[in-house]
Amino acid sequence: MFGLIMAGGKGKRFWPKSRERHPKQLLKIFGDKTMIQKTVARLKPAIPEERIFVVSTEAQMSLLQKQLSGLPAKNFIIEPKGKNTAPCIGLAALFMERIDPEGVMAVFPADHLITNDAAFLKTLKVGAKVAAESGSLVTLGIEPTYPATAYGYIQFKEELGKLDGIEIFKVKTFAEKPNLPTAERFLSSGDFLWNSGVFIWKIKTILAAIEEYLPHLYDGLLDIRQAIGTKKEAETINRVYCQIKSISIDYGVMEHAEDVVVLKGAFGWNDLGSWDEVYKLHDKDENDNVLLGTHLVKDSRGCLIDAPKKCVALLGVDNLVVVDTDDAILICPRERAQEVQEIVEIAHRKKLHHLL
Amino acid sequence: MFGLIMAGGKGKRFWPKSRERHPKQLLKIFGDKTMIQKTVARLKPAIPEERIFVVSTEAQMSLLQKQLSGLPAKNFIIEPKGKNTAPCIGLAALFMERIDPEGVMAVFPADHLITNDAAFLKTLKVGAKVAAESGSLVTLGIEPTYPATAYGYIQFKEELGKLDGIEIFKVKTFAEKPNLPTAERFLSSGDFLWNSGVFIWKIKTILAAIEEYLPHLYDGLLDIRQAIGTKKEAETINRVYCQIKSISIDYGVMEHAEDVVVLKGAFGWNDLGSWDEVYKLHDKDENDNVLLGTHLVKDSRGCLIDAPKKCVALLGVDNLVVVDTDDAILICPRERAQEVQEIVEIAHRKKLHHLL
Repeated sequence: MFGLIMAGGKGKRFWPKSRERHPKQLLKIFGDKTMIQKTVARLKPAIPEERIFVVSTEAQMSLLQKQLSGLPAKNFIIEPKGKNTAPCIGLAALFMERIDPEGVMAVFPADHLITNDAAFLKTLKVGAKVAAESGSLVTLGIEPTYPATAYGYIQFKEELGKLDGIEIFKVKTFAEKPNLPTAERFLSSGDFLWNSGVFIWKIKTILAAIEEYLPHLYDGLLDIRQAIGTKKEAETINRVYCQIKSISIDYGVMEHAEDVVVLKGAFGWNDLGSWDEVYKLHDKDENDNVLLGTHLVKDSRGCLIDAPKKCVALLGVDNLVVVDTDDAILICPRERAQEVQEIVEIAHRKKLHHLL
Repeated sequence: MFGLIMAGGKGKRFWPKSRERHPKQLLKIFGDKTMIQKTVARLKPAIPEERIFVVSTEAQMSLLQKQLSGLPAKNFIIEPKGKNTAPCIGLAALFMERIDPEGVMAVFPADHLITNDAAFLKTLKVGAKVAAESGSLVTLGIEPTYPATAYGYIQFKEELGKLDGIEIFKVKTFAEKPNLPTAERFLSSGDFLWNSGVFIWKIKTILAAIEEYLPHLYDGLLDIRQAIGTKKEAETINRVYCQIKSISIDYGVMEHAEDVVVLKGAFGWNDLGSWDEVYKLHDKDENDNVLLGTHLVKDSRGCLIDAPKKCVALLGVDNLVVVDTDDAILICPRERAQEVQEIVEIAHRKKLHHLL
């Protein structure tokens, strides 16, 4: 099995800690390793480091290589530009097929949190087995616990079986992030799972699916396949990336493909989409506060402080997020934490480039 | 006329900007001069710098001398320990009488804001004239504009006359900081003024009053008077300060004295008692915010940001005070800004001495 970690996230939702050159996957958002270090550490029992690939842009490469020093240098693949997940997956598949064209490829977001690594690895192995034996496109779904509007959903139909205790279903449809009434309907229907963004398939299977559903991308990949290992490699990748359109693997392939299955995973998955999610995952003190760093707090409840270098004094405030960095402080209600991107937009408009 | 600036304030209410060694009078709380620099600048047209004295503790002396480099070094009087205003005034009177025993002495807090200097100087001159000619203890009162609970009050009785357009009344009583119903009663009665903390009297008059109403303090002053200018000066002041009790001039003298008058002042006085007062004095932007420093603000109203070195991002918060310094950030609702002292108490209890 090969692993592909997609590390292209911009991470605006964790501003001011995340910046264009320091997106979420490169940060210690939760715990004492960065998100991508956690991701690699989680995979290592199932996939040797020599078979773990990371795709990202030039700007993040030096930091990625520093943080993931156990991975071979050649396993860091540079995209000239983010074009969503389909081109990224196709490009990585070309590098992997040169090593083992019969291999299975598992795709992971770089910046999600998983709290039960053992359960995750078991699910991953079942997924790899299904992908190898059936030639299906395999996805990992998560049983939803609330009507989330920040996640994509997967609707399943008949159960195909159970392997190692893990239920396997045929996929009916993929649904993008819903509004709240729709999410509530999904939850009560009982046949929807959250889309974890983890996919498993044979290299041959996904390339064939791209050929069928995204022929323009496939043409580009054929050019790249010929150029890999030659002097023209970088130039060809650049040219192809200028021509292809930006499209997700969900929208470009998964929604159209026939043979798609979903495994019902239960491994404490969270995409850590905002500071509010970070708050919810931490243990709270007796006033429901999460206080990371020195603090002086009176009559304040439900707050998250992330301020490693400065003492934060809260007096009479509730449910606030306070994040302090060397050059900026964010203060907002937890329930509006997902709007932090709009602060980044204001910084753009004000041309405060050092804050982006 | 001599001027005495009492610079003993602890300034906990402006934490984290104010600290034990950097209390409010030494800070630029409003505008681009420190509060005590503003105080001296205001007095200079009426009192030459050679006649302006500053009393404070050892800990603040070097910073005071640096900020007030125009004053002679001998005009900085060190109190071994703060013992409230009565001992401070008595001690300063001893230094002044050596220069001119017939002189008039005016006493000023170091850290109040006055917006109309010309009106203030006119009132001060009238006060000096009344004090010199009548031998009264003269106070400056301020016509109250709202039922303040943070100020002391002066109740007046019959009008004694008018000088240069300034009304002069005989004082009936002094009242300490009232609760709100009492403050409302004071306001509606029409015969109460705010106590500005400015006093004017002949040196002889105040020393005689101390002799009469605070005989124990007066005995100590007699010892100090003999020691001033000798090797025993510092030792004697230390010894006397260990023995005398802490008492304000209002409570120890003014409330008991017979011949006390009050001038009705109108010179834009504000004691700048909290960050909320600072907010109220500043011009506001279109969302009623006062934003000092770089900021990124969305859906936020009525906030004060004082953060000269850092970008503060506010999203969806109202009526907050945010003050950033090198080692601490304060966040509290404006209406609770006067409770900031309790944050300082918590820092004490947590033994975070670097934050005090």
